[in-house]
Amino acid sequence: MTGRALVVLSGGQDSTTCLYWAIDRFGVDKVSSLTFDYGQRHRIELACAKEVAAFAGVANEVLPIDTFAALGGDALTDDIEVQEQPTAETGLPNTFVPGRNLIFLTFAAAYAYRHGITDLVTGVAETDYSGYPDCRETTISSLQKTLCLGMEVELRIHTPLMRRSKQATVELAQALGALPAMAMTHTCYNGQRPPCGSCPACVLRAKGFAAAGIEDPLTSRP
Amino acid sequence: MTGRALVVLSGGQDSTTCLYWAIDRFGVDKVSSLTFDYGQRHRIELACAKEVAAFAGVANEVLPIDTFAALGGDALTDDIEVQEQPTAETGLPNTFVPGRNLIFLTFAAAYAYRHGITDLVTGVAETDYSGYPDCRETTISSLQKTLCLGMEVELRIHTPLMRRSKQATVELAQALGALPAMAMTHTCYNGQRPPCGSCPACVLRAKGFAAAGIEDPLTSRP
Repeated sequence: MTGRALVVLSGGQDSTTCLYWAIDRFGVDKVSSLTFDYGQRHRIELACAKEVAAFAGVANEVLPIDTFAALGGDALTDDIEVQEQPTAETGLPNTFVPGRNLIFLTFAAAYAYRHGITDLVTGVAETDYSGYPDCRETTISSLQKTLCLGMEVELRIHTPLMRRSKQATVELAQALGALPAMAMTHTCYNGQRPPCGSCPACVLRAKGFAAAGIEDPLTSRP
Repeated sequence: MTGRALVVLSGGQDSTTCLYWAIDRFGVDKVSSLTFDYGQRHRIELACAKEVAAFAGVANEVLPIDTFAALGGDALTDDIEVQEQPTAETGLPNTFVPGRNLIFLTFAAAYAYRHGITDLVTGVAETDYSGYPDCRETTISSLQKTLCLGMEVELRIHTPLMRRSKQATVELAQALGALPAMAMTHTCYNGQRPPCGSCPACVLRAKGFAAAGIEDPLTSRP
């Protein structure tokens, strides 16, 4: 595959797997990564992304987005306790930031535009337990069309995890040699390291590794 | 028309006309306005938006976006001289910020989501002399679909100026009683007030008023 790829890297398990998928597909010299500093309460995510990218041998750039914090009202940027159950108001967990992935991918496309990159890679998945509508294939496909029209470019958004279960994602990570990097990732919604093990994100991650019969390098860290 | 509308208000001629269009269509009590502080060199735009909104009797909220300045490389946020001619690199003037309107409208949709608003109004027009691809009807239509899918809402993006010439926009402003507010708007790419009269934006504005046979309340200010 020719071309250059930009991976939206959050420092979590899924985007790290995608980073290795991109390296496998495009070659390490053709891959770079972009991380958003959007005021996430858990600043450790930025350090994880940096550590993962350096370990994988690709560049990592951080772009600030101060808008979500100004919009307010979600548990990922505000000092609100994470609620597992969907709120009555929206039918979604209070970790939902409306349009977050749309914004991330649009800014990634703008960054790609400036750098002559035509392939974006993101770890969104329909199997995400929260059912975020901006993670669905129909949404991403529509967004790709919108970005191509709005920037007059031939842009592709790759979603290697779209239809994978968490188990299948762990298996993919193993196949791509991404497991060592998993020790540097961050998943816990409560921002703890070592992870709390009880929040929805920790539970989902543990289930995926257990189902794949693979030890999680993060929780098995000495 | 029922429902509530959010107008993306830049403080310029077009978005001010749209504000009056929305007031006419939805009623002044159902309209609010949103302005983005995206690091524009001409800070006067923010003051104009505020003045226009207050004059029209609608609320105005400002949301910061620090990402464009971090992306860099355009004449609207950087200290780069405005060039009328398209650059060889992109075929677009150097005032082009890739994806700017996509970002504005996606954040506006997120804001609308939080406030139970389902109608967005924007002043983009295909007739914009610069040919920005994110101002075209096909792009906006695709974006509306993307936002509806990505946020699971029934959202409408209204573009009352899409197919209007600058002359027709001036005529619409007159019909809507928006002319007095035009004295408070800002158009000049060089950030001057009174306007420089020679930049592409000033020239285009002057042509529109001249063609409509209407005196521009901004340039005819005592």
